Amino acid sequence: MRLGNVDIPRETCQLVGNILGHVGDKWSVLIIVLLRERSMRYSELERQIETVSKKMLTSTLRNLERDGFISRTVTASIPPRVDYKLTDLGREVMEPLDVLARWALTNSQRIVLARSHYDALRD
Amino acid sequence: MRLGNVDIPRETCQLVGNILGHVGDKWSVLIIVLLRERSMRYSELERQIETVSKKMLTSTLRNLERDGFISRTVTASIPPRVDYKLTDLGREVMEPLDVLARWALTNSQRIVLARSHYDALRD
Repeated sequence: MRLGNVDIPRETCQLVGNILGHVGDKWSVLIIVLLRERSMRYSELERQIETVSKKMLTSTLRNLERDGFISRTVTASIPPRVDYKLTDLGREVMEPLDVLARWALTNSQRIVLARSHYDALRD
Repeated sequence: MRLGNVDIPRETCQLVGNILGHVGDKWSVLIIVLLRERSMRYSELERQIETVSKKMLTSTLRNLERDGFISRTVTASIPPRVDYKLTDLGREVMEPLDVLARWALTNSQRIVLARSHYDALRD
C-alpha cells in the first residue's frame, strides 16, 4: 500500500489503521481535545461529554492509556480520586488531529448535505 | 470546546467527532488509501484488505458513500458489477488523513511500546 510516495508494508498499514482507529474515534478525539487545557477527573470528563455512556468512556480512556496518549493518576482518598492528563505522545498527536478536525469542521456542511442526499434517495 | 484558538459549539464538536469517527476508522482509512490510485470493485477491495469481513466492508463502504467520500457505480451485467471511487470530497480528505497517517507511521513504535508496557503491568 502507498501513502503519498512511500510504499508501506501491509503489517505496518494495519497497525497504522489500528492506531488511527483508536485516535480517530469520536470519543477519543473529544477526550484528547478536552485534556489539552488541563488534567481532568473521570467525573469531569463524563460531565463535559454528556452523551457518552460510562461503559464507553471507561473503555475509551483505557484504550487511550494503553496506547500511551493519556496517563492516569489515582489519589488515595475517600472516594479515590482519578485524574487523567495528556502524555507527551498525547500532546504530539494533537497536531495532526487538529489538522483533521479543522478539515472536518470546515467541511461538515458538505458531509451533512451528502448524508441527507443519500438518505433521501433511500426513504 | 476549543480547537486551537477557535471556540467550537458542542453540537459542531459532536458532528466533527462523528465525522472523525467515520473517517478515522481503521477500514475507512484503508479503503480511502486504496481508492486513491484508481476505482475498485467490491471484490478487489475485499482481496486487498484481506482481514475485513464482508459485513464490515459493506457497512464501511455504505458509511463512506453516505458521508460523500466515495461514489458507487453499478453496471448491469451478469453478475452486476459494482465499482467504488473517491469523490472530490474523498480526494480532499486524503490530505489531512495523510498527515495523521504519517504521524501514526512515524510514531507506531512508541505506541507499540506503550501497549506492551501497559499489558505487562496487568499480566
